[in-house]
Amino acid sequence: MDFKLLAGQYRDELLNNILPFWIENSQDREFGGYFTCLDREGKVYDTDKFIWLQGRQVWLFSMMYNRVEKRKEWLDCAIQGAEFLKRYGHDGNLNWYFSLTREGKPLVQPYNIFSYTFATMAFAQLSIATGSEEYATIAKKTFDNIISKQDNPKGIWNKSYPGTRELKGFSLPMILCNLALEIEHLVDKSLIDKTIETCLDEVLNHFYREDLGLILENVTTDGQFSDSFEGRVINPGHSLEAMWFIMDLGVKLGREDIIQKAVEIALKTIEFGWDKQYGGIFYFMDVKGYPTQQLEWDQKLWWVHVESMITMLKGYQLTGSQESLAWFEKLHNYTWDRFKDKEFGEWFGYLDRRGDVLLNLKGGKWKGCFHVPRALYQCWNILDKL
Amino acid sequence: MDFKLLAGQYRDELLNNILPFWIENSQDREFGGYFTCLDREGKVYDTDKFIWLQGRQVWLFSMMYNRVEKRKEWLDCAIQGAEFLKRYGHDGNLNWYFSLTREGKPLVQPYNIFSYTFATMAFAQLSIATGSEEYATIAKKTFDNIISKQDNPKGIWNKSYPGTRELKGFSLPMILCNLALEIEHLVDKSLIDKTIETCLDEVLNHFYREDLGLILENVTTDGQFSDSFEGRVINPGHSLEAMWFIMDLGVKLGREDIIQKAVEIALKTIEFGWDKQYGGIFYFMDVKGYPTQQLEWDQKLWWVHVESMITMLKGYQLTGSQESLAWFEKLHNYTWDRFKDKEFGEWFGYLDRRGDVLLNLKGGKWKGCFHVPRALYQCWNILDKL
Repeated sequence: MDFKLLAGQYRDELLNNILPFWIENSQDREFGGYFTCLDREGKVYDTDKFIWLQGRQVWLFSMMYNRVEKRKEWLDCAIQGAEFLKRYGHDGNLNWYFSLTREGKPLVQPYNIFSYTFATMAFAQLSIATGSEEYATIAKKTFDNIISKQDNPKGIWNKSYPGTRELKGFSLPMILCNLALEIEHLVDKSLIDKTIETCLDEVLNHFYREDLGLILENVTTDGQFSDSFEGRVINPGHSLEAMWFIMDLGVKLGREDIIQKAVEIALKTIEFGWDKQYGGIFYFMDVKGYPTQQLEWDQKLWWVHVESMITMLKGYQLTGSQESLAWFEKLHNYTWDRFKDKEFGEWFGYLDRRGDVLLNLKGGKWKGCFHVPRALYQCWNILDKL
Repeated sequence: MDFKLLAGQYRDELLNNILPFWIENSQDREFGGYFTCLDREGKVYDTDKFIWLQGRQVWLFSMMYNRVEKRKEWLDCAIQGAEFLKRYGHDGNLNWYFSLTREGKPLVQPYNIFSYTFATMAFAQLSIATGSEEYATIAKKTFDNIISKQDNPKGIWNKSYPGTRELKGFSLPMILCNLALEIEHLVDKSLIDKTIETCLDEVLNHFYREDLGLILENVTTDGQFSDSFEGRVINPGHSLEAMWFIMDLGVKLGREDIIQKAVEIALKTIEFGWDKQYGGIFYFMDVKGYPTQQLEWDQKLWWVHVESMITMLKGYQLTGSQESLAWFEKLHNYTWDRFKDKEFGEWFGYLDRRGDVLLNLKGGKWKGCFHVPRALYQCWNILDKL
């Protein structure tokens, strides 16, 4: 592979296709914030605003401004989204709603902890770009809220009956692995160190099962396997994404053992999750091979594939693993071939098992300005250094 | 079509394939109730018990006992399920949980109103078979609970923020159309008449939109179109199933206008919902043609197709509509060809867009002993009278 040439390909796609797409099509010039429901050509088909995606887009443009170039249109885009979020995104106590109307009226209650994590990322990253104390405080206080909700993230909206089958989910410790690095400039070192230590222990010793070589999405609160739909489910993309977060922590801590472990888990996961018949990575699988409860189990999702590209490339960069490089190449070919729209801007998000487009959209309730540009940025930077 | 021959085909499939499959494979001889997570061959792959499916199986075997033949094994099967439900299915005040462990411990809180509706059907039908006052009382009191929860079925588990976009769903009035006929022997005539009148008005004047010729799954509380994901979604199978409930009400009330209307709506719906490329009926569609939020939108589900067979056959029986008969024939061919497993017992539940098996199961969290046998029973009986 010609790494220099590839680096250019990733950079160009990021700077000349993806970012202009969102700058031009997603900004709500009337009410602020971003439209994310954009059709194939970038036209708005629904105006609801989802806090996950609002926060992620603020983060993305702030990050680009902080790390790539001081472009005013990037900062302006981030700030207008953050102002909308600040005003309408929460209940006054930094409990972040799940979604709002175009005008900013709350639609769905603050039941989802990831609305909080992406708000934290957004304001923490933007506070670096602007030096704003106010943004820094929002990030810090929201992070405190997350920590206090860690044991029952859904709060009063939790439908599980207490005591029968208490499970904990992989998502929160996984996201905290990443979030810790995003807010270390704002929070006491001791809290960051403790958060990182706990999350690493959770991910590598509770959710990862040595016997299977795989990460479970849910385990019992004392870290055991639960032979139930929730307990058996594997989300290969999730595991793979987490492994590059873990590699980043390994680099920060100077822990080569952790990096090696992450590479090893990533390779086992992609072997398990790769569709040998049609290519691509399955969305959900049952660890025992039983039918999943998720009807969308065999679909090929954009974020799964672009996150896995980062993981494989970073694994190669940090350890020289040839297997990781080979997987990166395979993923690169599949992903650029299937997800990139050759006719219009941005990438498709949802393919069927065979790799054909399932939903003709560039953004929606869950796909916004985040995974594609973050992955292009990450891969460009790694490739540039190889 | 040779109706006599077909009637035999439906009867044989019901009596010699479907019912034995559930009698043999689903009964939990140790703890009571039914396993519904059965793999292709009928082996149990998960032991959780879902109240929807427990209630529906009690109803199905009670109904067979009441209407087809006084077989002891059918009644025994219904009673053992009902005893399990009576003991473990609710919180002591007939608030019905969503799911239980194999032993009967509650797993998921009583957030779902349809756990209540299927419990009502179950105990009402079984009270006819057994003459039990206790079962009759459970049905009556649960029905009262449903009526009292009608305006906010999810109760404290409702995640919508009050006041911003108040929507009401089609499912509840639709199921009440059917439930009213199931419990008329137990409830005051005035309450039944009022329930039927309200539901007919809701379905035909609020959820059905003359301008579209289609039924919307959600409308605003004052009956208007909501241009949002929830407001735009069409579930053709749901609409089609409701139309045979409405035809039954039309017969009961001697209202030919209602029957005609139901036939007309059914024909428009299947025209809209039929996949012109691969055949079969889509699961979800957006009324404006936008991408749906449901990733499973293009899948072909068993219940959609078997319920539509009933609707088309009943439409032909009651009005002589040749179009309905032609659709029945088309559905009959697709359904028997694709959903029936030629090698093992029972039918597949989930096919991909092309009609290939998506999940290799005969039962799961949502598919139990209900739609297939009910449809075979209904079609057999109609065909027998043609």
